[in-house]
Amino acid sequence: MTSTLSRAIAHYPNRFDPGVVSKLPEHLQETIRRRSKALGPGYTLIYREPVEFVSGYGAHLIDRDGNDYLDAYNNVPCVGHAHPHVAEAVARQMAVVNTNTRYVQEALVDYAERLLSTFPEELSKLSIACSGSEANDLAVRVARFHTGGEGIIVTRWAYHGITREVASFSPTLGAGSPLGPNVRLIDAPDPRLVAPGSTLDEHMRQQVRGAVDDLERHGYRLAALITDCAHSSDGIFTDPPGYMRAVVEEVHAAGGVYIADEVQSGFARLGESMWGFSRHGVLPDIVTMGKPMGNGLPISGVVFRPEICEEFGRNVRYFNTFGGSSIPVAAGAAVLDVFEKENVQQRVLENGNALRAGLREITKNSPYVAEVRGAGLFVGVEIVKDRQTLEPDRALAEDVINDMRDRHILISGTGTSANTLKIRPPLAFDSADVTRFLETFAEVAKNRL
Amino acid sequence: MTSTLSRAIAHYPNRFDPGVVSKLPEHLQETIRRRSKALGPGYTLIYREPVEFVSGYGAHLIDRDGNDYLDAYNNVPCVGHAHPHVAEAVARQMAVVNTNTRYVQEALVDYAERLLSTFPEELSKLSIACSGSEANDLAVRVARFHTGGEGIIVTRWAYHGITREVASFSPTLGAGSPLGPNVRLIDAPDPRLVAPGSTLDEHMRQQVRGAVDDLERHGYRLAALITDCAHSSDGIFTDPPGYMRAVVEEVHAAGGVYIADEVQSGFARLGESMWGFSRHGVLPDIVTMGKPMGNGLPISGVVFRPEICEEFGRNVRYFNTFGGSSIPVAAGAAVLDVFEKENVQQRVLENGNALRAGLREITKNSPYVAEVRGAGLFVGVEIVKDRQTLEPDRALAEDVINDMRDRHILISGTGTSANTLKIRPPLAFDSADVTRFLETFAEVAKNRL
Repeated sequence: MTSTLSRAIAHYPNRFDPGVVSKLPEHLQETIRRRSKALGPGYTLIYREPVEFVSGYGAHLIDRDGNDYLDAYNNVPCVGHAHPHVAEAVARQMAVVNTNTRYVQEALVDYAERLLSTFPEELSKLSIACSGSEANDLAVRVARFHTGGEGIIVTRWAYHGITREVASFSPTLGAGSPLGPNVRLIDAPDPRLVAPGSTLDEHMRQQVRGAVDDLERHGYRLAALITDCAHSSDGIFTDPPGYMRAVVEEVHAAGGVYIADEVQSGFARLGESMWGFSRHGVLPDIVTMGKPMGNGLPISGVVFRPEICEEFGRNVRYFNTFGGSSIPVAAGAAVLDVFEKENVQQRVLENGNALRAGLREITKNSPYVAEVRGAGLFVGVEIVKDRQTLEPDRALAEDVINDMRDRHILISGTGTSANTLKIRPPLAFDSADVTRFLETFAEVAKNRL
Repeated sequence: MTSTLSRAIAHYPNRFDPGVVSKLPEHLQETIRRRSKALGPGYTLIYREPVEFVSGYGAHLIDRDGNDYLDAYNNVPCVGHAHPHVAEAVARQMAVVNTNTRYVQEALVDYAERLLSTFPEELSKLSIACSGSEANDLAVRVARFHTGGEGIIVTRWAYHGITREVASFSPTLGAGSPLGPNVRLIDAPDPRLVAPGSTLDEHMRQQVRGAVDDLERHGYRLAALITDCAHSSDGIFTDPPGYMRAVVEEVHAAGGVYIADEVQSGFARLGESMWGFSRHGVLPDIVTMGKPMGNGLPISGVVFRPEICEEFGRNVRYFNTFGGSSIPVAAGAAVLDVFEKENVQQRVLENGNALRAGLREITKNSPYVAEVRGAGLFVGVEIVKDRQTLEPDRALAEDVINDMRDRHILISGTGTSANTLKIRPPLAFDSADVTRFLETFAEVAKNRL
């Protein structure tokens, strides 16, 4: 079956190969066969032996045999799997009423004000949608409307979502999903790409300038640069912060807007602050968010500087049936409660630092680990054939991922060559989880790295 | 404030004019002012005096003063506001675990099989997304990929959603949201548009042919015709069924696919069957659904004939984070439980017939009612200045809508001239609700119609 798959699909990091279903435990075989028959295009399981969970708590998932897996991969259940405070808030709202934004809803206004209070005051308008894709789609629609431009700049292996528009600037989706003629790619901020004598700031500035020039040469004015503040699909590049100042300067000089895609990096994922852009000391024109926003309830958001979206609002109807309705908003508010009550950001900072320090210690002498990088609880470990040439070793990365899975710890892969371990646990990940993770990783590393 | 609004926004049926906020009860004023300040572009309240609800049950909504409103407008809470079976199913799942489609989930497979069993067997593949917009976006992406064409045909005042792609073929969004150069508009199936001596079938066939010819003349091959089986935004046109056979023949002859948008018309809304297309005796290539699917939990779906989506699946990655995750699926399955247990479809058929019969009786001598139309619990009452000329009377329609609201019954408006009363209650609407609705409508009609 693999042979009939396009390169785009084959690239999918850590994907399960349905061709080997018969080698799986029997109870999985039947479900996977039924699943393949009933589900539509593009569904992919992960791991050589896929996993099924029947319950969860904190950063832990329990399979049907009662095994406790440490989840070091899922960012959606940010405050923890089945967090009781969120579960109760949703249950309470479900039992009462769910109205949409055509009706007055005090809880929506309370939530909007509360979420906006985590932003610089210039970012003062919130729209709510269902998914990160919808959020990015709206953000770019507004950017196009505001600027009158069409050009879009993203990083070389960016992923921003799956609507037709957003897929057109998500190069990670591969050749089967063509980029728009109005889309230009720039390097992710990988300090190793910087020419000797230059700086990351200067490198990124030149990247943006080159893209703007090429767009203009083809008749496109810039609408927006949109980047994931964690550069997750590019391979996780977060540091050193600061380079975004040069990027934003160039974007504004070209008449475009800067959209910070915080779907992955937002909600304290990077530890030092609630939003990834803050680390760079820049002010976005638009910020999008999604995955962790409702701890699993579908909810996403777009935050605007008012001058960016006013004209759009006067001219374009936009009603999102579910976006801003009572139930997702109840989930979103409960997540913010937990952030305050449990001091989530500080926990992320501390456990993220401990996790990266431990990983660096374990891998410091490995010839196959190019780098341990990231911020907060978003960590990449780049696996290579040779530390000098940096030649990617996807096969080894997937061996490590699956060894970890067999030892009941969930991580996955990312990056242009799918050779970077992606470690991105629920933010409920605590110090005991860090210890368990590092102990298990050390065992795997002893064999593999 | 109204004067600065574009025609596109001003057209919004039954919209609240924020310029008159100071005339509202005090508790609403403050919330609406805060709301205007905090929310992003495009948010619109409805009714001259907007409403706020604190609880609901069946087809009823309760305001903060304890008034019981009869909801004859909201289609999302299809099995009833805060239906206990759905609320419990979601609460139970929230307290256990929520995983996405990268993991094996038996409940997802069970749900997919169960939902697919309501379709003809040729429609055998289900994809799950978050919103109707995402569903229609994916449907058209797949149609473009499958056909290699780009042309899209919709009805003249269609609404299919709010992603950039879907907005490009949603003419109801108005001039602020431009149609794509690849989009052509045809008449909604209004029998009154048929020339003497012709038939609705023939009229619709000629409409499609004309659109295909014009697309081809501009270099576009047809990708898809997508229509709402209830033609909700066009003004609610459901009958006589059958004309879709000619439409689908023409679409297939031109190499396109037929997408049945069942976001409004699906889940037994039209009474005779689970899906609106069944009334026409046609087989769609793709079916999309949304709003009522999870009774308020964000979930939508796309059902494909396998030969339409296979190649897309082999070439394009598509992962929808929330789509198909455990919580929305639990809601979707609970909705299907209620459909079976409460025999929802039969209830819709009976109460819909009674509702339309009653409305026809009340309005039969009114010079201002052109037509009572629709099927099941989707009813349009077209309000005109003159029954002969059919000149639309939006102002009178909005008087009726707001008189009904003041008598605690919720309906709204639709149609190219926003002059058709849109009556589209939760499917929980029972015979007592029909009686209450008709009694109140008769009072309003006595003054207005």
